[in-house]
Amino acid sequence: MVKRVSLMGADCPVARALDVIGDWWSLLIIRDVFDGRRRFSELQSGLGIAKGMLAVRLRDLVGRGVLTTAPASDGSAYREYALTEKGSGLFLVIVALRQWGEDHLYRPDEQHSVLVDIETSCPVDRLSLQSTDGRRLGWRETEVRAVGAA
Amino acid sequence: MVKRVSLMGADCPVARALDVIGDWWSLLIIRDVFDGRRRFSELQSGLGIAKGMLAVRLRDLVGRGVLTTAPASDGSAYREYALTEKGSGLFLVIVALRQWGEDHLYRPDEQHSVLVDIETSCPVDRLSLQSTDGRRLGWRETEVRAVGAA
Repeated sequence: MVKRVSLMGADCPVARALDVIGDWWSLLIIRDVFDGRRRFSELQSGLGIAKGMLAVRLRDLVGRGVLTTAPASDGSAYREYALTEKGSGLFLVIVALRQWGEDHLYRPDEQHSVLVDIETSCPVDRLSLQSTDGRRLGWRETEVRAVGAA
Repeated sequence: MVKRVSLMGADCPVARALDVIGDWWSLLIIRDVFDGRRRFSELQSGLGIAKGMLAVRLRDLVGRGVLTTAPASDGSAYREYALTEKGSGLFLVIVALRQWGEDHLYRPDEQHSVLVDIETSCPVDRLSLQSTDGRRLGWRETEVRAVGAA
């Protein structure tokens, strides 16, 4: 988490997003909370991360409004972490990372976990970018317009 | 880039993806190459990153097959960086980060850059996840099935 420059003043939303969640461990923590791991001990054993590193990142994610804490649902003394509305908005970031990993980082004979539609147990569709009138857009058909550009 | 554990053996595609590009600077470099910055000096001045840090990350991204280098298109002695097919597959990761940043990290009166469809100059549509039969899926309607799960 060496960050020499804060990008929270950037006029590029990608830069601001990375400033909030652009840490390897933080995105894995968020992934695990999406997958239903909610307690410190579950996150720690699942990720194999040092307790101190996990504690710092969880505090940071709570402070940035991505996660929130609440008493455990079973009435025990534990606390649980949950995604805020802002945090759950990161779902498509996780899905996009997953689909890229599936496409490029496995040998054809290698197995990986899959994201399925609970209702049908079928794998979800691929993400795609579209124009507002429904054409599929590749990256070369788009461009970033800076603030103030016509 | 302190990585205590390599996740390249993980059976979760998100973990493998983050192992390859899960560094704050690396994703900003990739964003800038998508935006047309191709030379070391352009990337360095645009990002305000130290030359040594940029050189390490570019070498790493080339080594991992995300970027490639080629002689400059103007015939000069410079070299240019370009996205490989694997690298250009990261477009939707960048778009998902952008849309999350737009939604959650700006005040209503604050301006930010926008991603537009070149043909119409209209902002692109929002990404959404769908089932293979066309229903929109929220994160609670999906789940990750581990390798070997029924």
